[in-house]
Amino acid sequence: MADEVVLLGFWISPYGMRARIALAEKGVKYEFIDKDPRENWPYLLQMNPVHKKIPVLIHNGKPICESLVIVEYIDEVWKDRSPLLPSDPYQRAQARFWADYVDKKIYEAGKKVYRTKKGEEQEAAKKEFIDMLKLLEKQLGDKAYFGGDRLGLVDIALIPFYSWFETYEKFGNLNIEIECPKFIAWANRCMQIESVSKSLLPNQHKVYEFIADALKKLGIK
Amino acid sequence: MADEVVLLGFWISPYGMRARIALAEKGVKYEFIDKDPRENWPYLLQMNPVHKKIPVLIHNGKPICESLVIVEYIDEVWKDRSPLLPSDPYQRAQARFWADYVDKKIYEAGKKVYRTKKGEEQEAAKKEFIDMLKLLEKQLGDKAYFGGDRLGLVDIALIPFYSWFETYEKFGNLNIEIECPKFIAWANRCMQIESVSKSLLPNQHKVYEFIADALKKLGIK
Repeated sequence: MADEVVLLGFWISPYGMRARIALAEKGVKYEFIDKDPRENWPYLLQMNPVHKKIPVLIHNGKPICESLVIVEYIDEVWKDRSPLLPSDPYQRAQARFWADYVDKKIYEAGKKVYRTKKGEEQEAAKKEFIDMLKLLEKQLGDKAYFGGDRLGLVDIALIPFYSWFETYEKFGNLNIEIECPKFIAWANRCMQIESVSKSLLPNQHKVYEFIADALKKLGIK
Repeated sequence: MADEVVLLGFWISPYGMRARIALAEKGVKYEFIDKDPRENWPYLLQMNPVHKKIPVLIHNGKPICESLVIVEYIDEVWKDRSPLLPSDPYQRAQARFWADYVDKKIYEAGKKVYRTKKGEEQEAAKKEFIDMLKLLEKQLGDKAYFGGDRLGLVDIALIPFYSWFETYEKFGNLNIEIECPKFIAWANRCMQIESVSKSLLPNQHKVYEFIADALKKLGIK
């Protein structure tokens, strides 16, 4: 039986991008249902009744939810190609630790950068965000990718946020490359990989326009 | 070389208990360093500089942090005995999903139950907490354990909170057994397993006394 693979996502979501990169790395063909989860979407509620969130991977009719769970699932099912986790248990634990760090920290810290008003609160948010990127730079060290010579779980967890960098920079009056040049060099390396670049489309400016519009409607900026 | 295994923890922490249950399931001998992480503890800061939290498992000198990462690490290193995750990728994904659910929800929801003052806010906190336990009961279904016939990742993630039940019940004026009898039946089954019962010592009342004292010092109750 051929695999039937469907991904419920929304183009702007860094979490959905993770699943897309992992599927592309494995060469898995899938249908991408691209919809704003805030709209009425009964199929999403049926497939993810607990969190009611995208992404959801539906493999032969069975749903898998939560982006890092999805990436590990993809790695375990299509295991003959492009391993996304190392084989050594200690290295696997380190990859899971840093993927979890990204998961818990980056989105919320980034959101504070673009949502807070100029002044002390925003300066604190910017410092917090940049400190996180610096910590990640330190963890990357001299490696090409967090996964070593090749893309791995931490790269896949983190690179989707690169598509939000114009948003962070414009609203936060930030230049991330000046603050974290090694981070940007890593992001550029990732963007040269087709599985990444095609999963992060359309581009940073579309994300910025979408967020600018949302903030305007909310009366925040 | 014999394995040198050290666990940095604090007796009351449900997260530390997870690591202890997993080590006990695998029959791994280890040194437990039991200390309040709020005290000056340079070794903890050295071993977990990112989060500065217990538990930390130190295996032959190398630290592993974050309780669910630790449990998966233990399962992968000592793989010949008592598998803690299923072998099927879909079942593994389901186990990771529910362990993550417990991780994100239960501690915070429980904390609201014992910290909020009587009244509407506490009633809402109690409802939220009980609704979570009911959802978990539904997920358990007719199985003996979340892991099926035997203890698994979700059981190990969840059962440590049982040692906090007297705290939730007394401060929340709750009877969890009346609300969720199947949940309590599951907890009792878990407590009959030595790896669980010895990792949840001393007992619910000690946890209650510790929290009561802490809340008093904070002037909350």
